[in-house]
Amino acid sequence: MDKPLTITEASRRIRDGRLAPLELVETCLEQIDRFDDQVHAWVTVDEQQARRTAEMLGRQTPRGPLHGIPLGIKDIADVEGLPTRAGSPLREDHVARQDAPLVAALRRAGAILLGKTVTVEFACFDPSPTLNPWDPQWRHTPGGSSSGSAVAVALGMCPAAIGTQTGGSLVRPATYCGVATCKPTFGRIDTGGIVPVSYHLDHPGPMARTVDDLEILLRCLVASGGAAEGPPPKPQPGGRRDESADSSRPAAPRLGLLEQFFMEEVDQPVREVTLSALARLREAGAKLEPLAFPDGFEQVQPMHRTIMAVEAAEYHRRQFADHRDSYGPLISSLLDEGLTISAVQYAAALAWQRRFRRRVATLFEEVDALIMPSTDTTAPASLETTGTPKFQAPWSCAGVPVVSLPSGVASDGMPAAVQLVGPAGDDWRLLQVARWCERWLAFDALPPLMA
Amino acid sequence: MDKPLTITEASRRIRDGRLAPLELVETCLEQIDRFDDQVHAWVTVDEQQARRTAEMLGRQTPRGPLHGIPLGIKDIADVEGLPTRAGSPLREDHVARQDAPLVAALRRAGAILLGKTVTVEFACFDPSPTLNPWDPQWRHTPGGSSSGSAVAVALGMCPAAIGTQTGGSLVRPATYCGVATCKPTFGRIDTGGIVPVSYHLDHPGPMARTVDDLEILLRCLVASGGAAEGPPPKPQPGGRRDESADSSRPAAPRLGLLEQFFMEEVDQPVREVTLSALARLREAGAKLEPLAFPDGFEQVQPMHRTIMAVEAAEYHRRQFADHRDSYGPLISSLLDEGLTISAVQYAAALAWQRRFRRRVATLFEEVDALIMPSTDTTAPASLETTGTPKFQAPWSCAGVPVVSLPSGVASDGMPAAVQLVGPAGDDWRLLQVARWCERWLAFDALPPLMA
Repeated sequence: MDKPLTITEASRRIRDGRLAPLELVETCLEQIDRFDDQVHAWVTVDEQQARRTAEMLGRQTPRGPLHGIPLGIKDIADVEGLPTRAGSPLREDHVARQDAPLVAALRRAGAILLGKTVTVEFACFDPSPTLNPWDPQWRHTPGGSSSGSAVAVALGMCPAAIGTQTGGSLVRPATYCGVATCKPTFGRIDTGGIVPVSYHLDHPGPMARTVDDLEILLRCLVASGGAAEGPPPKPQPGGRRDESADSSRPAAPRLGLLEQFFMEEVDQPVREVTLSALARLREAGAKLEPLAFPDGFEQVQPMHRTIMAVEAAEYHRRQFADHRDSYGPLISSLLDEGLTISAVQYAAALAWQRRFRRRVATLFEEVDALIMPSTDTTAPASLETTGTPKFQAPWSCAGVPVVSLPSGVASDGMPAAVQLVGPAGDDWRLLQVARWCERWLAFDALPPLMA
Repeated sequence: MDKPLTITEASRRIRDGRLAPLELVETCLEQIDRFDDQVHAWVTVDEQQARRTAEMLGRQTPRGPLHGIPLGIKDIADVEGLPTRAGSPLREDHVARQDAPLVAALRRAGAILLGKTVTVEFACFDPSPTLNPWDPQWRHTPGGSSSGSAVAVALGMCPAAIGTQTGGSLVRPATYCGVATCKPTFGRIDTGGIVPVSYHLDHPGPMARTVDDLEILLRCLVASGGAAEGPPPKPQPGGRRDESADSSRPAAPRLGLLEQFFMEEVDQPVREVTLSALARLREAGAKLEPLAFPDGFEQVQPMHRTIMAVEAAEYHRRQFADHRDSYGPLISSLLDEGLTISAVQYAAALAWQRRFRRRVATLFEEVDALIMPSTDTTAPASLETTGTPKFQAPWSCAGVPVVSLPSGVASDGMPAAVQLVGPAGDDWRLLQVARWCERWLAFDALPPLMA
């Protein structure tokens, strides 16, 4: 089939009258119809409403930047009138009475809410039934927790989808499924109406096929407002502060390479794709500068785990006490862990997180962004795991923005990606750096299923 | 003696060449010399440095807004070269190697750092030796924990001083000693270089004699930068957002009266002063509108206590384990409490605080500020307590800005005050409201000691 349309291209055709929103919806529904029995990316597809909305939008002059664009919403964010099941049998009867602010913002921008995409149980660790379309033999995890969103975008079931990341729940499934994603600065996007995992770590964000599309989505999502408890944005020496800059001719960026940890822990197939990607970027003019880690980086995984375990346990405590049997083994063990932690231990982890954020800010004194592989491996050939968050969790903990871009297909036939990490608050400038890199990464492979 | 000079008046005279910074320093040192043996407001008076700096500034053209103004700094904030004892025997040997950012900001603005004012032990509850100058028989607490700063300003030992508030440590001692204070929005002022009590509750702020002086100080303090984790500023319907507005002709404000709790729990002497103050404001044109509390207000005291106990216990845990005998009984009991709390309980208190902040924001939909007595009683006639934070802690928990203005001397001869509370982020507009009120409150009494 043809390569699925991007938001940018679909919007252009809609504006020019060459594409009706209803046609686009039908194309998406066809892809869902064709593949979803196999990949299980969707919990709810709201066909009738999507068609009705598309017809209505088709009669209107395009106003918002997402006019007529069908989107999938991870099934932990409320969409009015649809259930928010959060991957748990405990929420079978939950029906959202109003849109989450982030969903309302997308709707205001003209988006068609196609339905709800599968999430791992309560956006934690127990795998969902979703399968990875890059392996026609269905042995590989699609990653999680935003499994359905990643698969839906990978298979052209929608041009883009919304997910959330607490550890690596946007970047990991996007990487395993060969799509792009952006985790903005912590606090940028309103988390109201979303089933929380962990207050100090949760980040909603978009998945799409291109950096332009990510930026369109992020600008709409940010309009939903955000919490205020982000890390302090660090003024960049000589840099512009978080403004929409002229992106027509971005200069070659200075990229910081964290070889320690990331290039040590990466496996061979991902290493090869990463080195090849770095070589192309260097050849195109990017300055790659090795950087050392800030002190204390080795504590990020246990600190992240402590914060996540406690905050998840706080949210689930009553329901977990009453319905323990309805929780999966991995989330149960997380909640049990959270219930045994002392307040002082948790307060120490939060204090550590604040120090870590300040240390991470210092990494950007000489570079525009950091670059490293998005994941340590390609999608594991297992349906018992969604992979490890170890390459993504540090940046969720730091609250800094990340853009992950597919950068090649590894020797095992599965896609790999690089992630670009920017200073807190500099989301737009990071997207500009990512746009520059995207051109040279030139990823255009599609899942074999789509051939 | 003459009424002590305000910053505004002293600055005018310094600029006009009618007052040398050294003269002002000498006046302050005379007051310290005259009274400090009795009131114990100062831990360290840096006479030589103050005189040297004053001479140097006297030879320069005034640049910063605090040029030549002597200030006292609560002895939990670092001043380069001076000890930061924090009211604890455990810190006898601590000498600060650099200024806290907030102190550096004052110094850059031209302030003369006269010395360190007494704090209650680690800014908690165990009374310091400081005495209240409104009672010549020395039976009354000056309040705490910023005891020395309040007494120093009350006695004209310095035109203004810096304190901090976690529960009520600025507003309570300022009220008990008859001076004005301002606790800005949480996160406005950098808390670096200050011995912490509780990350989610600590607020540095100025004490002075007038609203103009508070504003001058706050503008300098804010220049120190701030943490980012403040409560989200709430756009006011039709209001200006946090800008320096024309303050020459402020309109009569709409003031919300929280009669529930505050007017129920207040004792008779403070009630009388408050009612008289409200009558004067109403007569001058202020619109006083009774408001109901947001749901859940009754939980604010235990939630505040949980957060404070845990975060203090986290900071002190090692030292407290090793040197328990060097801690006072009240802080020991706070730390013991913090050590027994579970992470989930503390996370629930933090989540409650975030909800409370959102609820408090809704109080400002129809009014410019809230008004209520600053304290439930005048200074208790006891040296075993610094009074209760129950009227101040709700606003520390909410993170909203507060200006407290002396409003009269109560029937027991001790001063009382009203506090004005504004929406998060609206510090400058609140100061403008306070300036309007100050005119009609017209407090000009001095401690009997100064007669």
